[in-house]
Amino acid sequence: MLDSFDQKKAQILAEIATTNEANPDLSPKGTIDELCLPIMNSINSHSDMITTSSCSGRVSVFLEGDKKGNSKIGAKGDGGHWLFVTHDKRQVSRWWKNIDFECQIEKSNFKPSRFVLFKFEPLILHVKCRDLTTAQKLYQTAMSCGFRESGIGVNNIVGIRISIKLDIPIGYLNEEGKCVLLVDENYLEFIDNQAINRFNENESKLNLLHRKISDMMFATTEMKIEETKNERRDRKRREGLAKQEALMKEKGKKLEMGQNEEPEDG
Amino acid sequence: MLDSFDQKKAQILAEIATTNEANPDLSPKGTIDELCLPIMNSINSHSDMITTSSCSGRVSVFLEGDKKGNSKIGAKGDGGHWLFVTHDKRQVSRWWKNIDFECQIEKSNFKPSRFVLFKFEPLILHVKCRDLTTAQKLYQTAMSCGFRESGIGVNNIVGIRISIKLDIPIGYLNEEGKCVLLVDENYLEFIDNQAINRFNENESKLNLLHRKISDMMFATTEMKIEETKNERRDRKRREGLAKQEALMKEKGKKLEMGQNEEPEDG
Repeated sequence: MLDSFDQKKAQILAEIATTNEANPDLSPKGTIDELCLPIMNSINSHSDMITTSSCSGRVSVFLEGDKKGNSKIGAKGDGGHWLFVTHDKRQVSRWWKNIDFECQIEKSNFKPSRFVLFKFEPLILHVKCRDLTTAQKLYQTAMSCGFRESGIGVNNIVGIRISIKLDIPIGYLNEEGKCVLLVDENYLEFIDNQAINRFNENESKLNLLHRKISDMMFATTEMKIEETKNERRDRKRREGLAKQEALMKEKGKKLEMGQNEEPEDG
Repeated sequence: MLDSFDQKKAQILAEIATTNEANPDLSPKGTIDELCLPIMNSINSHSDMITTSSCSGRVSVFLEGDKKGNSKIGAKGDGGHWLFVTHDKRQVSRWWKNIDFECQIEKSNFKPSRFVLFKFEPLILHVKCRDLTTAQKLYQTAMSCGFRESGIGVNNIVGIRISIKLDIPIGYLNEEGKCVLLVDENYLEFIDNQAINRFNENESKLNLLHRKISDMMFATTEMKIEETKNERRDRKRREGLAKQEALMKEKGKKLEMGQNEEPEDG
């Protein structure tokens, strides 16, 4: 019998294996960000860890939700919507060219209450660990690479976070329901470049984290496990069977389910 | 004998009790933010928790450090410096009036590499708990109030974090070493107001957190402890003695120490 961690891990691996553009997961983008795949593969090759959500980093521009509803300040929430979103730094430059902004600021008594925000959000990874010892080791590895907003939640899930952000209000919603820009094109170009710098910094932090996880998490595990050849063969057979079974279930389930839930990240 | 948690708690309470403007702590500001005091007092009245650092939220404007040194992107770091910082929303409006900016953008081939950032950073609290059960309960309480970037670190320290931020590049350092603004005064006024909105939102989140901690952390503890009158009297006596002893030590130590270290928050 597989324990509950191994069952959960097999189920998630099966979901990852069947996710592609034709068969999307429940995130807004629908697929795993390419930049995350190498580090996810490394983490998931460790017998005591499994990634549960990931976003490699992104630029988004959106109109805030209606605060009379339940929308939070600076969040898309109810009634807000994306004007632009990308996980690819090559797509950032001049993103505004296809967007229909009003550029004339009105001199009226109208007090805007909903704003247009330009955000850069860095890598975020959630990793479920088999036990607290593994979770603490992963947490400390992340902290040592500068992911200073990391922390362990419930069920030994480690949130890996860093604060290389941009959070810039650039406009507002006017009385006619049009988005009005408060900055000029020079400034938009300037923050595009700032976002690209942060994409680069984020990528180098991601690579550092990947190296450190490979060094620190695997070195000690191998010593700790001391599995015999036979134990390893049996474990691999059990894991393979569980993965196959979960894969079959997953394929059935996806056909039954809708795609309209939004997880926290991605 | 007090256990190590009680000793640490007595020492921190003694530090808090002796900190004031004439006798500052090691944070840049030197004193505890007023808005934090009520929630800190509540937390610290619980026998299994002690606050280890706090910042009630602030606006800061600074020149980034020199990236050739070890400075991080978007951080003050080596060679950077504050142009303005406040924890008081009433001080935000028109902060730039006393600062000597160049407002004329030069048309040259100079590529700036150091930027001026305007930031709003919300409440952050670190709380050391006696055990993992208490840490997990506090973590879940914080998450339930929207402090979604919270997490448990090592030694049962809970980091309580929320992402109501602003992170806005507004200028750069030119060849002559002067700060040049990239936005106009209208935009500066606009982001002042955005920061004040976030201060208000932050304060209401802080109050919500305070209420929930009072409700959730204390209700169950009282049931759990079931301390007799005599046990309580003995504990209070022990705690009082330890606090007094730590207070005396702390007063001696402060006279010996410099004030030039910067902790992470505050």
